[in-house]
Amino acid sequence: MARIVMKFGGTSVADVEKIKNVARRVKSEVDAGNQVAVVVSAMSGKTNQLVGWADEISPMYDAREYDVIVSSGEQVTVGLMAMALQSIDVPARSWLGWQIPIKTDGAHAKARIQEIDTTELDKRMNSGEVVCVAGFQGIAPDNRITTLGRGGSDTSAVALAAALKADRCDIYTDVDGVYTTDPRIVPKARKIEKITYEEMLELASLGAKVLQTRSVEMAMNHRVRVQVRSSFSDVEGTLVVDEDEIVEQEVVSGIAYSRDEAKITLVKVADKPGIAASIFSPLADANINVDMIVQNVSEDGKSTDMTFTVPRGEFKRALQVIEGNSVNIGYKELLSTSDVTKVSIIGVGMRSHVGVARKMFETLAEKGINIQVISTSEIKVSVLIAEEYTELAVRALHTAYGLDAE
Amino acid sequence: MARIVMKFGGTSVADVEKIKNVARRVKSEVDAGNQVAVVVSAMSGKTNQLVGWADEISPMYDAREYDVIVSSGEQVTVGLMAMALQSIDVPARSWLGWQIPIKTDGAHAKARIQEIDTTELDKRMNSGEVVCVAGFQGIAPDNRITTLGRGGSDTSAVALAAALKADRCDIYTDVDGVYTTDPRIVPKARKIEKITYEEMLELASLGAKVLQTRSVEMAMNHRVRVQVRSSFSDVEGTLVVDEDEIVEQEVVSGIAYSRDEAKITLVKVADKPGIAASIFSPLADANINVDMIVQNVSEDGKSTDMTFTVPRGEFKRALQVIEGNSVNIGYKELLSTSDVTKVSIIGVGMRSHVGVARKMFETLAEKGINIQVISTSEIKVSVLIAEEYTELAVRALHTAYGLDAE
Repeated sequence: MARIVMKFGGTSVADVEKIKNVARRVKSEVDAGNQVAVVVSAMSGKTNQLVGWADEISPMYDAREYDVIVSSGEQVTVGLMAMALQSIDVPARSWLGWQIPIKTDGAHAKARIQEIDTTELDKRMNSGEVVCVAGFQGIAPDNRITTLGRGGSDTSAVALAAALKADRCDIYTDVDGVYTTDPRIVPKARKIEKITYEEMLELASLGAKVLQTRSVEMAMNHRVRVQVRSSFSDVEGTLVVDEDEIVEQEVVSGIAYSRDEAKITLVKVADKPGIAASIFSPLADANINVDMIVQNVSEDGKSTDMTFTVPRGEFKRALQVIEGNSVNIGYKELLSTSDVTKVSIIGVGMRSHVGVARKMFETLAEKGINIQVISTSEIKVSVLIAEEYTELAVRALHTAYGLDAE
Repeated sequence: MARIVMKFGGTSVADVEKIKNVARRVKSEVDAGNQVAVVVSAMSGKTNQLVGWADEISPMYDAREYDVIVSSGEQVTVGLMAMALQSIDVPARSWLGWQIPIKTDGAHAKARIQEIDTTELDKRMNSGEVVCVAGFQGIAPDNRITTLGRGGSDTSAVALAAALKADRCDIYTDVDGVYTTDPRIVPKARKIEKITYEEMLELASLGAKVLQTRSVEMAMNHRVRVQVRSSFSDVEGTLVVDEDEIVEQEVVSGIAYSRDEAKITLVKVADKPGIAASIFSPLADANINVDMIVQNVSEDGKSTDMTFTVPRGEFKRALQVIEGNSVNIGYKELLSTSDVTKVSIIGVGMRSHVGVARKMFETLAEKGINIQVISTSEIKVSVLIAEEYTELAVRALHTAYGLDAE
């Protein structure tokens, strides 16, 4: 007997028929003698609709009320899921964030889970009841609903698996696992059998949309065995595991890309201490997420160019902040474009292999693709390129690192 | 300065634009120096959609989960309403049933409010904040969401007005008041300026859909001044008040009709003590609501016919219960039809006037309409007639009692 958490994303619970299918899948785990906690997202499209309404009311909406509104999507599916299980004779009960409670901090719309009280859930699961938990939501110290940011149901599932000491956490989605890259761009992309937490973390944060970044972080910290698999088929998915569980490690495991980038360059800012702070402190104050940063070598010893990237959704706001601080910063010209893509190669094998980044630069050069910005970490290399080269770059790199399926 | 509760029904909050309109209306009450609590329903059509999904999962669904699902509709509108108010600089905050809390009994899907803790709401209102309360919902003793039955937001509003000691409770809807009868059937129907609690209670329970019956009951018990008015215009609505506030009382104030009726007749049951119990006890056990009952005068002293009505939604189940108990009851034949309408005249003036019922019978007779069952109370007379005569009967009675507008 195992204790498992099964998480179903929006496409898996998109309508009543699909919810019934999910219930049958849950039943088969119960029939196999397992204790099951089910975590559900909102029906696909629902959260976007709710966010759209909030935006229509006011683009500067109050995050406290946003959370009240958008958390309702999961409330609907978790009730329907419990009903669907009951209707096929599986004892089940729904649980909302505030009922458990799943305690979070007060950062509305992007709250972090602090503690999950499992007393009642433990009791129910031990008695054979399936506990159906609304993903994406929790409760703040002041007794108001919080949500965990888009994709937050993954984090709910992993956090619940950790708190319940579950043997594994299965993330059911509309793809059958994690791929070496996006199969819509590279038909020869392969499903990865096992991937390390570290690699998955980079993949997720660099653009692969299969898991929320924070959920991977949490899985890594609590050593939760996560499996990404399809709700529409029975094939094995991708296991996210410790590095030592993977015998033969690829040098590069996957290639990610993100079009959610915009580039800003400040031409001829003073090359002096404190200049970076004068640029990036106001952006941080405005809650804008700066990603890649590159500072040119100063030619005259007096001035330099500063380039950085921000998410496209924060592009306009970032420009406003810079322009609002132009006197304080002091620059000759402000250049900007959202016509860029970040392409990244990821692999823990990089740690022990040399020449990995060089191969990336050479491959892109051969295709005539200009690299605008580079950033690296221990297990990834990211480059910013013109958006029109996205597919070409990803395909070329996929071949170059020997990832193509036979 | 007054303290008021403003309740907006589903058509008044049907989309974002309408919610913004409502917010402006609330703001004008705030600007006039009033303390305001807003109670909202779900967007029109939303609750039906949610109930439809539950039905699709299983017609025998668990009412606990039903409540989790359907209460989400009000959660969305209450959040949007608070946002809309904030966006026009009115301090506002949303409140769900469990947050206040609005404590109910554990009768899921038709719970009754037991207590409303107004500590926090009082504090907020005194500080000038508009409290936006999700209608229709509460919380059961076991910490699970309950709902108050269809139309329950009216009851939420009146209960809140009573608990907050509000000066009045305005029910905003898509009609501009309570009419002498349904204007879709009788173009000459008139809006009633003032109506007594007792009459409103009869009107609501006999088919007029403008207020939930229980909300009127609660208004009467707590002497809450209720006004029914339109969210789409500024004309005065209908005041529901104590009898002594109405100077000139009509004999008949309104005419209601309900097509939600079905008639069952047991032919030749034994005319002996206990026969009524043998028929109606099993129906009560099955939670079926029996309305009008008539027992024919026994011709032979041994057997009689028993006729009664049930809501159409419970018609089939009622027949099954009777058939399942046929041996115990003992009848010769079971007749049934759902081809009936109940038409009622209502007026507190009946208490002091004679001949009111006779005029009803004569008016219907003149039109050739056969009365199948009659039931009366102190302030109303109801008759069951064939459904095809509904409009004819209502129009004729409206004229006969002098209710037609000039």
